[in-house]
Formats: sequence, structure tokens, C-alpha cells
Amino acid sequence: MDDVRTRAGDVIPSEVPSRAPDGAEHGRKRVVIEAVTPSVDGGRFAAKRTTGEEVQVEADVFADGHDVLAGVVLVRGPGDQEAREVPLELVENDRWAARFTVDRIGRWTFRVAGWVDHLETWRQGTRKKVAAGQDVRVELEVGARYADEAAEAAGAAPVARQLADVAHRLRHVDPDGVAALLDDDAVAVLLRQAMPRHHVTTTDELPLVVDPPLARFSTWYELFPRSTSEEPGRHGTFADVVARLPYVADMGFDVLYLPPVHPIGRSFRKGPNNAPVAGPDDPGSPWAIGAEEGGHDAILPALGTEADFRDLVAKARELGLEVAMDIAFQCAPDHPWVREHPTWFRWRPDGTVQYAENPPKKYQDIYPIEFETPDWKELWDALLGVFLHWIDAGVRVFRVDNPHTKPFPFWEWVIGTIKADHPEVLFLAEAFTRPKVMHRLAKLGFSQSYTYFAWRNGRDELREYFTELSQSPSREYFRPNVWPNTPDILTEYLQHGGRPAFVNRVVLAATLSASYGIYGPAFELGEHVAREPGSEEYLDSEKYQIRHWDLDQPGSLRPVIARLNRIRRENPALQHDWSLRFHDTDNPALLCYSKSSADGRNVIMAVVNLDPHNPQSGFVHLDLSALGVGDGPFELEDLFAGGRYTWQGPTNYVALDPWGTSAHVLRVVRPSGAAVS
Amino acid sequence: MDDVRTRAGDVIPSEVPSRAPDGAEHGRKRVVIEAVTPSVDGGRFAAKRTTGEEVQVEADVFADGHDVLAGVVLVRGPGDQEAREVPLELVENDRWAARFTVDRIGRWTFRVAGWVDHLETWRQGTRKKVAAGQDVRVELEVGARYADEAAEAAGAAPVARQLADVAHRLRHVDPDGVAALLDDDAVAVLLRQAMPRHHVTTTDELPLVVDPPLARFSTWYELFPRSTSEEPGRHGTFADVVARLPYVADMGFDVLYLPPVHPIGRSFRKGPNNAPVAGPDDPGSPWAIGAEEGGHDAILPALGTEADFRDLVAKARELGLEVAMDIAFQCAPDHPWVREHPTWFRWRPDGTVQYAENPPKKYQDIYPIEFETPDWKELWDALLGVFLHWIDAGVRVFRVDNPHTKPFPFWEWVIGTIKADHPEVLFLAEAFTRPKVMHRLAKLGFSQSYTYFAWRNGRDELREYFTELSQSPSREYFRPNVWPNTPDILTEYLQHGGRPAFVNRVVLAATLSASYGIYGPAFELGEHVAREPGSEEYLDSEKYQIRHWDLDQPGSLRPVIARLNRIRRENPALQHDWSLRFHDTDNPALLCYSKSSADGRNVIMAVVNLDPHNPQSGFVHLDLSALGVGDGPFELEDLFAGGRYTWQGPTNYVALDPWGTSAHVLRVVRPSGAAVS
Repeated sequence: MDDVRTRAGDVIPSEVPSRAPDGAEHGRKRVVIEAVTPSVDGGRFAAKRTTGEEVQVEADVFADGHDVLAGVVLVRGPGDQEAREVPLELVENDRWAARFTVDRIGRWTFRVAGWVDHLETWRQGTRKKVAAGQDVRVELEVGARYADEAAEAAGAAPVARQLADVAHRLRHVDPDGVAALLDDDAVAVLLRQAMPRHHVTTTDELPLVVDPPLARFSTWYELFPRSTSEEPGRHGTFADVVARLPYVADMGFDVLYLPPVHPIGRSFRKGPNNAPVAGPDDPGSPWAIGAEEGGHDAILPALGTEADFRDLVAKARELGLEVAMDIAFQCAPDHPWVREHPTWFRWRPDGTVQYAENPPKKYQDIYPIEFETPDWKELWDALLGVFLHWIDAGVRVFRVDNPHTKPFPFWEWVIGTIKADHPEVLFLAEAFTRPKVMHRLAKLGFSQSYTYFAWRNGRDELREYFTELSQSPSREYFRPNVWPNTPDILTEYLQHGGRPAFVNRVVLAATLSASYGIYGPAFELGEHVAREPGSEEYLDSEKYQIRHWDLDQPGSLRPVIARLNRIRRENPALQHDWSLRFHDTDNPALLCYSKSSADGRNVIMAVVNLDPHNPQSGFVHLDLSALGVGDGPFELEDLFAGGRYTWQGPTNYVALDPWGTSAHVLRVVRPSGAAVS
Repeated sequence: MDDVRTRAGDVIPSEVPSRAPDGAEHGRKRVVIEAVTPSVDGGRFAAKRTTGEEVQVEADVFADGHDVLAGVVLVRGPGDQEAREVPLELVENDRWAARFTVDRIGRWTFRVAGWVDHLETWRQGTRKKVAAGQDVRVELEVGARYADEAAEAAGAAPVARQLADVAHRLRHVDPDGVAALLDDDAVAVLLRQAMPRHHVTTTDELPLVVDPPLARFSTWYELFPRSTSEEPGRHGTFADVVARLPYVADMGFDVLYLPPVHPIGRSFRKGPNNAPVAGPDDPGSPWAIGAEEGGHDAILPALGTEADFRDLVAKARELGLEVAMDIAFQCAPDHPWVREHPTWFRWRPDGTVQYAENPPKKYQDIYPIEFETPDWKELWDALLGVFLHWIDAGVRVFRVDNPHTKPFPFWEWVIGTIKADHPEVLFLAEAFTRPKVMHRLAKLGFSQSYTYFAWRNGRDELREYFTELSQSPSREYFRPNVWPNTPDILTEYLQHGGRPAFVNRVVLAATLSASYGIYGPAFELGEHVAREPGSEEYLDSEKYQIRHWDLDQPGSLRPVIARLNRIRRENPALQHDWSLRFHDTDNPALLCYSKSSADGRNVIMAVVNLDPHNPQSGFVHLDLSALGVGDGPFELEDLFAGGRYTWQGPTNYVALDPWGTSAHVLRVVRPSGAAVS
């Protein structure tokens, strides 16, 4: 009979279930283990954690009848030959839990094991009989035989002697001493540890990918290197970016993301504002990758050399910044691969290569890669090689452009292959598409994912979306990274909301999500003019032309952003997503929420006026237990706008003004030791 | 590299994911299939249906990019060599669905397959280009080559010629005729059917157990055969039960459930009211199975012979009644197995067999079976043999006593083994225990399950419980069977609520659940005295003594029950559980709900006064769409209490009196053809 092993150590029966799918013991394994968490699609994908986090494994564990059960979680870290055992404890209603801390990056696994604990069943039953005044002489002999069995299993170990002594005491205990002997914790522990386990049910291994903390808590800044020159009109270089590093680091960012730095195609190059024809000096879009100078593993000469790039990566790291490289797997018509590997592209009957199109729109400057090519293995190797090339150059973070337009099996393979050797490398999925597609990419290995944050502006939609992100089971694999703007996304809210809109959006991003990013200097300088009405494209977008930015212009949000990022660094509550809780507000223009650190000692509450045009006020109705405070007065320190408040009880009044204090970011000041319930 | 195939055709990657887990095509399979329903624990267990039902299979099906997809569900009925294809249609948001009807009992399977539909992608893209006035000469050649490929795949089949003709037309179509050719449905269908499918993603097979309709819609009556004698004091026989059959059938029942009919042990036999010592004429508990006359495959001589039993089964069937046999796998100390198979029991150090106990309580008349025996395979065979013995005697329905005290793997094996040869056999799990245990038993094969119904009396708890039973994913495998009473359960509500309590409970059971049962004649005769205060045991319980019942006593609920069962038979709405919807009521003593048939043509609404002591009245707030009526007036015919009402709009007034009309069971009278939305 065919049997297929599946996720929970269980067996899918064929038409007639086999009686012995895993040997002669099958029929004696009375314990069932179900609904193990964390697990993603039953173990098909890995749950995600970062080093230092505590993992809580839970499972439904039960058996027939009323015997006492016991169980453990068997944990293996990367490279561990032996699994470590963590005891399961009953939570309630057949749900059991165990906790352990993951202290190394890499791929961990765990499995759950459970068995009938005859020894404890005997001990509890006998104790009840003693309490009821029943004769337990036979029970004591039963117990003595358990001790005999444990002693025999211990063999020559010193504990065998102690176990033999327990057996002797059980056989010769005075009737008045039976209760004390049964209640003797030392005896119970001795027996429990030595007793052989019989008929143990064990699940299959479930995977857990442990990333560096940056995967959980990261603050991104995107800039176009070619726009970093101090002289207007000159093409920026990696050296200019190096000069810009302190500006970025001082604002408190820890990831510097650069659009593609490769040679840019010349055929069908686009001009400013996506004009169909470029002028002779137009630089083209960095995403039209590849020219005679090279492809995905080359550097645009105007930016510098690969040595310059390596220097930038190293200097950035000295300032606490990881350089995130853009990976956009598509080719300009001049890309060397078009000539060298024609089968990696789709050819039309007229002998041309199929360019990107979304009928009736045409993008003749971009050739998509034909992943259905029979030569897909060579193609995959080449694409893997692109990642490895830049990892060799020092890159540890990749922002992947439109991963949802390349096959899912490729991403699972390439990310898995890279992380097997380089578990420290992180991948951000730039997929603004349908939810199931975004979730699949996250499941199959992307460390972080872009979100719909840019288009969520109202109180209820923000609350609903961030509750889903932080509380639904998808949080096991989908780590959000929220961006108020990107080079492709200048929202209506930013176009028309003035400076308060920019402040609101960055306060929300920085405090709702442990990872966020901005596209600068456009963001901090309040760039807000769209190419045309109804468009989310920037006018004179850096995607198609070099810009010169006056970083010192009055009104720059640089100090605001620096303050927010300092608050994030100083308050562990803001460095995780899962503790997010929303509090009710009477006024729909006010959003109120809080986060707390894992130990409950650091609690941050934010109140934001979502209306960039008008002062708004109203009552907030707090979930006091989420704040770790009782009914009495409690202090709040505004880390963002300054000031101190004393609030009491669940209902408190807030007034916010877009041109004054438009948001509170409040630290809850509680007696030390008080924690969130 | 090790790879483990799992539920959705997917592959669990080992540390480094393999690039070709299922051959050279893996990297070209762009379609992902996830979240297939119906599935129970990802295919580990079978979903359940009954013959004649329509199965709706759904799945998330998507790929990278923006190509058009296509898919099918591949369905195999019992014994089918070839799978039947049912096309998937997009529902919304990457969710696809297909429907098929299951017309035979047995184990079905289905799998989902999906692929990129290049042909349709080409057709839709070209149509858009034509609409935009673009030159599509190259696109027409692309399409002609698809037709060439389809023609080549068709080989010598007549369709090849038609396909060659399509290729010709695509190559020579007049520019003005392109749109019409692309929109030609005949051409589209021809190409779609003939086009080879490439790089198809297919899930593993998911199981579906299809039972006879009795598994979904059944009406049970339990009686003690020994209490069926017409003469007080005489032990009833199977012949007496035969004489009682018209009484049971005329009330509208279709399952007659008998407590164990085997020889009863004499050692430690219990007397009336569970007295520790029986008198010489006390018959003992039928669940203390086994004596020198035989064990689980023998008949208690006082009841008759096996031939008499077979006669009873046959005569019952003539009246539309299946005899349900009780299976209680435990032994009285006199059971032949104790002597013949000592290793099937647990022996104590003093040379006695361990009897059942729940310290400090002792049940010396019952020996549990020791399922951890090394001889478990022989034991399992013997227990299977008990089922097969009675199946051979004509039994098709088993009520299994306390299945939760025997190992889960045993039930999965024994039920699976029996149903492989006898798919018509049904199993009712008598497990009143913790929810996860009850659910596991249902998953692993029990056709129906007892529920907590007996202890749900308030409006909100009834609403919550039946919403869970009928709407949660567990409905795929857990079929409730609700009992107002059993020989073990005489609830406080029945003890103290008088006749109205009995009426209410049977109305609720008969209309809330497609399967229900009563223990009679105790139920219809209003037996309500407990053995002692606080107990749910009957005084003078038939479990320990023979009772004589006066079936013709005035006040018997026989006509009430007969009317309810007739309403059930005549109204398909009451023969399924999944359509149940509750309607709001102002007064918590009033419960209002409705059910509708699959085609929406039959709608039954019930309103029950849950208070057995006082008249109650109030407004009900109807979900009109669940009733299939609009804002205008609609007619209601009370099939239970009689009368006709005209209601209008969602809010209507109801008054119910425990000693008059205590419940309405209303048929919604609508214009023919109107259906539930």
C-alpha cells in the first residue's frame, strides 16, 4: 500500500489505510499532534524570525482516553547534528506550548513529539486513591516496576542506583508515608527523566528561517546616485554618494537603496518625463539595463568603477548603512545577453525580440526575459551569478524589482540557494500587485515586502490594513516595509496635502511599521508636483533625468525624520510589528495606536491627525491593558512634539493642528516593573 | 537533494531547494495552485459529501506576470481509471471554482491543474491592438503558428483539417476581417480544445468520501429491546421489537438504534440504579459485554438468536428503518477474550486484570481493552471481525460507544478498511468529550458525531453553536447528530421544564439539524425524574433494569414527533445543515432561524420560545435575502402549529405560549421560481 508522509508526522492513507505505515509501532502510537504553529502552509514554507527573538511553538496534543501526556519540541539550529529538547506545557483545551530563543541566523527546524506518560498517570491516580483511603499496595508495586524499568534503561549510569532505591522505597514504604513519597518532587523528577518513552508520535520537521535583526527593523533611504553631484548638471558618481553618506546616516537610516547602477541601453532610450525619444545627452532610465559596456554585473561608467562601488559599500557600512542593490531582471535591447543568449528572449516571427507591452502600451526599451525557455537552467544560473557577483562586492541587501513578473519557482530556488551559503543576505520584494501574489513571494523567501501603505489614508482603512499585517497568520512570513513615496508613487495625498501630509505620512510609516523607507531627497524636500493630473508619476522624474537637489532648503523635513528615527532606535516597542494595537477614537480624522516591547517595559502610543488641512480634536478610548496601565493616572512623554501629559482612565481628549502639533508620539511612563498585560 | 512531495503538488525544499524536483519541466511551471477546498488538513483527511450533492472545488490559481490562465479539476469516482475534467472559472481575486455532482457512494478524489493559456493571452492582446488601430500582421502569424501547433498535435484526427484552415485564415485574413476572426467563438473553442497544454501545474489528489444520503439526513430512535415486551416483567425479545417497528416507523424515524444485544457479564454485575451488587434476576448493563454464552459476535439468549436478529434487520428495512448496532469495545470479566487473549488486557502485579476506573471511582464490571498490547494487529483484526460479522447479518449503521477511549489510528484503519468494501456503511461517534478529540474522530472517518446540543438551551449559545457546526470549515467533515436525551443524559432542562421543555427540544433538534435522535419511549412519554438531584442519570434507568412503557398514555408526544418528522421529509430545506441562518430577536427567550434547499425553492423558518414556563413575545428582525423574499408582503404557512400569516419587511411580531403554540415551523410561500439570494 502506498502511503505519503505529510506535515504532521501523519500519513495520508491510500484507499485502504495501511496498518503499519511506519513500522510495527504505528498501532501503539496513541498521541495525535495537530495544528502546529508557527507553520506556513503546513510546513511547505518557512516561518520567519530574527536572532534574539523567542519562538513560541504550539500544537494540539491529545490522545484517546484520560491518561496524562507529555511532549517536547525538538529544535535544531543551522548545522546542529543533535536536536535540543524543550518541554511542552499545557496551555488549555489540548493546546500545548514551548518556547526557545533563536540565537543564530540560518535555517532552523523543529518538530513536536508527544507520548502517553504512564508514570505520571500512575502517580496522579495513586495519589487520588490514597486521598480516598483506598488500598494502594498493588499500585505501589506498579510504580516500583516503573522504577525498575527506568533503572534497567539507565544501565551502568549512576542514576540507576538512585532508581533502584526508589523502587525499594515504593515496595517498602510505610502506609503513612505513601502520600509524601508520591508527592516527593525529587523522586518524580528522577523517574520522569529516566523513564524510557514508549510509542512516541513525532511530527515532520517544520522550517524556520532566522534572519539578522535588520530583516525585522530597518529604515530605508532611496536616492539616485546620478543626482548626488554638488554641481548642477554634472552626473553624480559613487564618490558623490560617499560624500552624501553622513547626510543619510545622520538622519538615522540604516539602509541606503540605490536604483540600478548598470550600463543603460541606448536603443529606444526614453527622454525626460518618459518621452518616447531621448536627446543625445539624456541619461535614460536605470531600469533599461545593459549596453555595450555590459549588463547586470557591470557598472555604468559615469558612476565610476566596480572598485568605487565596493568602496561605497564599505564606507556606508562604517556609518551603519547597508547598501541595498536593485535587481531588475530585464534587458535593454543593447544588453549583451540578447546577443549571447538569444534563447533567453522571445522571438517574433518577423525576427525581432518581443519587447515589454501591456496592449496597447509598448515599452520598446525593455526586453522581458523568457523564463519558459528550454534553457531555463542556464538562465537561472546566470541570474544567480548576478546576485553572487554583488554579494562578492559586499552587498547584503537586495531590493528586487517586479519579482511578480518572474516565475515563483525561480525565486524560491535562487533565494534558497543564496541563503544556504549567505544566510545574512536580505531580499525586499517590490511587488505592488494582487494580495495572493505578494503573499506567495513572501512565503517563498523574500525577507521583506512592499505594501499598500501609500494608498491607505483614512483611519479605518489604516486600522484594518495594519491589523491584518500585524495580527493575521501571514505575519509569520510577510514582513511589511512601508513607503510614503517611491520614484513611481507620488500619491494624491502628498500632491495636495502640503507639508502636513508629508509629516503625517512619515510619522505613520515610522511608528506603525518596524521597517519603512522614503525616496529622497524628493520626500524630505516636499517634492509634490505630478507629471499630469491624475498621475502618480513625478514631474521631471529622476527615472529619466538627472536632478539637482538643494538639501539645505528651509522647510526640509530632515530634522523631523531624524527625530523620528532616533525615537525608533531608542524605543524597542517600535522595532517589532506584532504588538501593534489600535485604540478607538470618536473623530475619524484621528488615528490612535500603541506598540510595546517584548518584555512589556517600553510602550509607545501615537495619535495622528490624518487631516492635513484642518485642526482636529476628539476623545480617544484607550485599551489600558495594552498600555500596561491601570485605572489611575499615568504619565505620557511626547518624544516627537515635546511636552508631558497626565492621563487617566480609558477616555482622554486630544487636539492636533496640521500647522502646529499634528501628531503625538508618546512614551508611557509607568512605575518600573509594570508591564503590558 | 531530498524533496518531500506535499499536498498541493508543491515540493518542500530541503536546505538548498532543488531545481528540478519533478523533472526538467519544473522551472517552466509558472502556475501556482494554493488553498484548495474542500480539503481537510491539506488532504490528510477526506471531506464528506452524500450522493446527489454538488461539490464546489475552489483554489487560488495564479502565475507571474499578466498572462491569461486556464485550469481544470480532474475528478475520479470510485473505480474510475480515467479522470473527468471540469473547467475552472475565475470567481474573483485569483480564486477559481468548478462544480460537479457526486452520483456514487465511495471514495472520490480530485486534483486541480492549471497552466498559462498563451493562446488566449495572444487573442486578447491582439484584440486590444486591433481596437487601438495597431498593425497586427506579426500577431496574426503568431496566432497561425499556434493553430499549426494544434493541428500537428491533432495528427490524423479530422479536427486537424479545420485547424489548418484556421491557420490559413489567420495568415490571409483581410485587415477589416481581423476583429471578427478573433471574436469568432467557434474558432476560439476549436483552438482551445486542440491546443496542447504546456508546463501544467497539478496538485496531489484530495480525497472526498461520498456516503448515502442517510449520512446527511437521518432521524434516529433508540430503544432497549428488553423493554419492548407487551407483558410487564417479561424480558423483551427481537420478536417484540419487530412488533414495535410500525410504532417507530409511523413516527417517521429511519434509524432504529439498539443498545448492545450481546451476552451480559455476571461478575460484578450492577443492580438497578447502578447498585454495586445485582440481585439474581437483575439483567445487568448491556454495555458489560461478554459472558460464557459469548462476546461481541454473540446474541444475548433472552433476546433471541442471530436468526431472529437478522429477521429484525430485514423487517425493519421493509419499513424504511435501518437497525443501528451499538459497538462498545470493552469486556465484562466473563468475556471469552479475557481467557482466550490475555495480552489484550492490562494485568496488575497481583494477577488480576485492570478494570475501568477514574480514581477514586471503580467500574469492576468492565475491563478496558489494552490497545498498547504488542499483539495489537491480532486485536485490530478481531475488532474488525466484529464489524464484519454484523455487516454480514445485514447491519449498515453502527453507533460506536466511547470511541475516544480507543486509539485514533485504530478507528482510521478499521473504518477505512470497512468502507473500502462496504462504502454504504455509516458510523456514529458517541464521544461526548473535548472538541479537538471529537473533531479528530470525525476527520478520521466517523460519518456522524454526537454533539453538545443537549446542554445548549439559551438563544445565544444555540446560535453560536449551530453557526459553528453549520458554517465553520469543520462542516466539511463533522456531521452533527443532535439528541435531546440519551440513556445517559437527562438534562436539567428536561427534568424541570415539563411537557413544553420536551416539545421545544424536539422541535429544535428536528429543525436545527438534518440528523437528530431521541431515546424512547422515555422521550415521548416525558420521563423526567433523575436518580438524584444534580444527576443527569434517569431514575430506574433501563441501563440496569427492564422497564415497561405505556405507549398509549395520554400526553405522549408521539403525534408531535410524527408531525415534525413528516415536515422534515416533505421539506428539503430541513435535510441539509449548511443553509442554516439565524435571525435576530429582541427577546432572548425567542430563537429564530431558517434553512433553505439547495435550489432555494423550499425555505423553512422556525421561531421557538425557549422558555418552557412563560409566554414570550417580541420582534424578530429577518434577513429577508436568506428567506428569498423582497420588501413586499409574503405568506407563511405554519406546518407545525397550523395557521397562515402574512408578514412584511424585516421586523415582525411573534407571541408564543408554552401551553399553546410554543413554536412556529413556517414554510415561506413565495411566487414559484423565486429563490434565496
